[in-house]
Amino acid sequence: MSYSAPITDIRFLLNEVAGLGEIARLPGCEEATADLVAAVLDEAAKFAAGVLAPLNAVGDRAGCRLEDGKVITPAGWAEAYKAFAAGGWVGLGLSPDYGGQGLPKCVATPVWEMWFSANTAFTMLPQLNTGEAEAILLAASDELKATYLEKLVTGEWGGTMNLTEPQAGSDLAAIRCRAEPQADGSYRIVGQKIFISYGDHELTPNIVHLVLARLPDAPPGVKGISMFLVPKYLVNADGSLGARNDLRCVGLEHKLGIHGSPTCAMSFGDNGGDSKGAAGWIVGEPNRGLEYMFIMMNEARFGVGVQGIGIGERAYQQALAFARERVQGRDAVTGAVGQPIINHPDVKRMLLTMRARIMAARALAYTAAGWFDLARHAPDQAAADKAKRCVDLLMPVVKGWSTELCQQVCYDAIQVHGGMGFVEETGVAQHYRDARIITIYEGTTGIQANDLVGRKVLRENGATLRELIVDMRGVAAELAAAERLQSMALRFEEDIAALERALDWILANGRDRLAAVLAGAVPFLHLLGTVCGSWQLGRVALAAARSPRKDTYDPDYLRGLIELARFHAHALAVQAPALAAAIVGAGETAAESEFALR
Amino acid sequence: MSYSAPITDIRFLLNEVAGLGEIARLPGCEEATADLVAAVLDEAAKFAAGVLAPLNAVGDRAGCRLEDGKVITPAGWAEAYKAFAAGGWVGLGLSPDYGGQGLPKCVATPVWEMWFSANTAFTMLPQLNTGEAEAILLAASDELKATYLEKLVTGEWGGTMNLTEPQAGSDLAAIRCRAEPQADGSYRIVGQKIFISYGDHELTPNIVHLVLARLPDAPPGVKGISMFLVPKYLVNADGSLGARNDLRCVGLEHKLGIHGSPTCAMSFGDNGGDSKGAAGWIVGEPNRGLEYMFIMMNEARFGVGVQGIGIGERAYQQALAFARERVQGRDAVTGAVGQPIINHPDVKRMLLTMRARIMAARALAYTAAGWFDLARHAPDQAAADKAKRCVDLLMPVVKGWSTELCQQVCYDAIQVHGGMGFVEETGVAQHYRDARIITIYEGTTGIQANDLVGRKVLRENGATLRELIVDMRGVAAELAAAERLQSMALRFEEDIAALERALDWILANGRDRLAAVLAGAVPFLHLLGTVCGSWQLGRVALAAARSPRKDTYDPDYLRGLIELARFHAHALAVQAPALAAAIVGAGETAAESEFALR
Repeated sequence: MSYSAPITDIRFLLNEVAGLGEIARLPGCEEATADLVAAVLDEAAKFAAGVLAPLNAVGDRAGCRLEDGKVITPAGWAEAYKAFAAGGWVGLGLSPDYGGQGLPKCVATPVWEMWFSANTAFTMLPQLNTGEAEAILLAASDELKATYLEKLVTGEWGGTMNLTEPQAGSDLAAIRCRAEPQADGSYRIVGQKIFISYGDHELTPNIVHLVLARLPDAPPGVKGISMFLVPKYLVNADGSLGARNDLRCVGLEHKLGIHGSPTCAMSFGDNGGDSKGAAGWIVGEPNRGLEYMFIMMNEARFGVGVQGIGIGERAYQQALAFARERVQGRDAVTGAVGQPIINHPDVKRMLLTMRARIMAARALAYTAAGWFDLARHAPDQAAADKAKRCVDLLMPVVKGWSTELCQQVCYDAIQVHGGMGFVEETGVAQHYRDARIITIYEGTTGIQANDLVGRKVLRENGATLRELIVDMRGVAAELAAAERLQSMALRFEEDIAALERALDWILANGRDRLAAVLAGAVPFLHLLGTVCGSWQLGRVALAAARSPRKDTYDPDYLRGLIELARFHAHALAVQAPALAAAIVGAGETAAESEFALR
Repeated sequence: MSYSAPITDIRFLLNEVAGLGEIARLPGCEEATADLVAAVLDEAAKFAAGVLAPLNAVGDRAGCRLEDGKVITPAGWAEAYKAFAAGGWVGLGLSPDYGGQGLPKCVATPVWEMWFSANTAFTMLPQLNTGEAEAILLAASDELKATYLEKLVTGEWGGTMNLTEPQAGSDLAAIRCRAEPQADGSYRIVGQKIFISYGDHELTPNIVHLVLARLPDAPPGVKGISMFLVPKYLVNADGSLGARNDLRCVGLEHKLGIHGSPTCAMSFGDNGGDSKGAAGWIVGEPNRGLEYMFIMMNEARFGVGVQGIGIGERAYQQALAFARERVQGRDAVTGAVGQPIINHPDVKRMLLTMRARIMAARALAYTAAGWFDLARHAPDQAAADKAKRCVDLLMPVVKGWSTELCQQVCYDAIQVHGGMGFVEETGVAQHYRDARIITIYEGTTGIQANDLVGRKVLRENGATLRELIVDMRGVAAELAAAERLQSMALRFEEDIAALERALDWILANGRDRLAAVLAGAVPFLHLLGTVCGSWQLGRVALAAARSPRKDTYDPDYLRGLIELARFHAHALAVQAPALAAAIVGAGETAAESEFALR
């Protein structure tokens, strides 16, 4: 149940695939020298393996408790969080103006992946700070920034996102939480929120809640939502902590997984009396809360995609170790007894499937992280714009597809263990349970797919996706010209053609048959993810084939990457044409079904 | 979280698809009149919904405890079991010569499905009796039959299968448990067993263990395994209970799911002293234990496939109810607010996927149950032989494919619930956790697939599968000739062609490239399952189309079945050609991969 960061994979992908060299030359990214990045990755790997990973099962077993109004997190959480914040890890990718390390996102991303591998339930706490900090940085007043931002970036205080209410889950239009303006320019917040991760705890002296609520004169629906900053303790003018605000955790959810992370039901302003609400300050302008929320949410969605990669990697490592140690049965071909089960063809197939899925999703996430950096820092405006378009288009894929793959990886990890996988002490079931939330929170897979098809593809008539397809065809041509990669090129061409067929159908029917198109949205997300996986692993194979043997990488490692890309192409991505057919088939037959559900 | 047996689906499949009418005319099955079957199904539906279903969550929360050497099952288990046994349900499909009801397997199967829907953890107890009774009936001496069989068939005593040992999971060749012959013809059993479901409990006054062990002179490997009957309490000549035998539960597993079912580590013969072992009696002949075990195991594997259908149905019902009640968001096409989420295209797609998968697996299982009956009772030897061949071939599909589908159904059931699905109190997570064992126990999906490819397909050079393909083509021709079913016919023809391609590849490479073929075995199991699903839902659609409107079935119900079959063909079975490609692709690239796993 130990964890060892996949440093070689991370370095290879950063340097050979995600273009770290190019990014480190961008203005504002110059600190990300090869030496610094190597040092950061090594330090993170040590902290992840040595401090966070051993607490993962501890947190799962202990869970969180609400006692005398206080949320008690698992033993070891407080010390680990103190060390985590002291190490500067919270603000690794955040602005140095407010105490962050300012490293490029493509460097921060593998580090966050390590934290999620080591201990997802723990890491949700600092992850919340990053999204909240981005929202405050982009939308809040200078006063709020001055008071709160550095505390969040350094991790001195915790952060939360208070969106969901019992009647408003995916549907934020239904939010009822109210905000009353006060004479001093502040607001009084009254309402109930549920599913608030780290909504309360004793790990930091203060907690900064971003709360979606409605002003008295707000229009109905999502256009009447505003965002408020609501601290657990009020902050005095000198920065010291003042009175307790009128908000509290009224209950903890009993969940399938991530037991170490308190999921709180929060009540704002239920003390009644004169105060009539929790004191809050508006972030940005009235009725633009949804827009600011999406700054946070985009950050969070990317992070949840990385959670999928991280949890998947941990589950894979455990399954691989078990398969190498566990001896059962005889060799199917030679009949030799005493075989470690990794030698059984089906176990090998499962492990290859797991590793191929993780590497495909990881290569895409790191590449997308590089696009973030280009979008923010590239002096060439056209390059920055294209990177922005790509990352916007593929954000629902990084979130939706990586998290769905993670479920299958964790499923296979249990399967490799056989009966031992069903026994909680083995530890692999925890990954399966923990992972189950990631296709739900920060927008379900269905919502990611609707976002992809609706806001991303249909709205711009498929323009960015067509651009990406041109890039993909370039990779296919390179594969076709490379030695031993031709069959992969042929397969990839088929995948791209399937994607184009599906795209054409969506564009042709998006107006008049939207219900059918949306019924095919999740299969389309899977198709686009699969083809992106072929694309990225094609780039991996090209880089591995190009790399001189006696260079930085072990030749067997490079051979293994090519084998993995080939396996992905022929065993997994081969589903692409079927997915294209399923999009149309699911869309049309689902839309026509009137009496089938009973 | 309630459960209502899908009586209409069951009746339709039994009568219109599985051929209950024909089976009820077989000698030995005459009691299964339409009236009796209807009464049995109705009574079972009442008991399942009224008694067992409400205990499902109770058992999950309470779990089992080992206290002072006694295994304590959840509150309500004892009363429910007493009523279950008193109702004659344990022996519903077992021989009337020993207290059973003697109903055909195709009638018993939907009843067992109801029990599994209602409460899988509970139902594992009586399920064990059925497999054990079959093994004793076919293999044990008259004396053992006289002493034990009726007790097991009526459920007065419990039964277990003691196979697994720490070093012998899937690999029974590694069994070390020993059996020493005694002068009186009995044996003394010494050894440890793990993962023994209901290995101990207080629900019945006695428990009859079937234990695999080795005689002192046994050859190594699976050819040296014998089967022993080892009762918890010795039985006196008059049938009364005598001394406690030297066996005990030494620990309970802490599991991901099925918490209501005690999973015991058992120790035989550790009291030491003069006895030196637990008293046991050999079942059948020495060293033929594996063969007898497979009698039990085949029964159990079919039962586990039915568990998959049952758990899936329960999860589907819960998701459907939630989707009808939960209001979120606006209609994607009209923009109307206040929509129950079932109106959202992606939620509808998920529910259709769940129902199509369950109905496909159910139709196959009931049809296979009918083959059991034909194999056992058909006076026409050719018909009986063919039914036997079919059921042997498809047993790994009923087990492996139905249980894998169930995972996806339970996964989607959580997904439909959104965040509520992750909260344990909602109850749907229990199905997801409970289901996770069924692709593992009684032979993992990998083992089912190896059985299918190795013992079933390669050994007979694909003969029975070719026979089935002829039958499938017949259904495809009927679909092609029926009004409004032509597009389904075209799709089904493609599925069959994909199956044939995969079969040809397996047969061509089974000798010289067995490792590659076995790496493609699980995809092949999925392919065969998928095509069987198309076949069975094709038969469902034909039956629904033929059925006169004002007959027994609501016309909307019949329309719904056709819609469901069409959805399955175009949205799900459309994967068949990709699966055929994946079998070859996974097989070849996995076999060639040397360095990819790290």
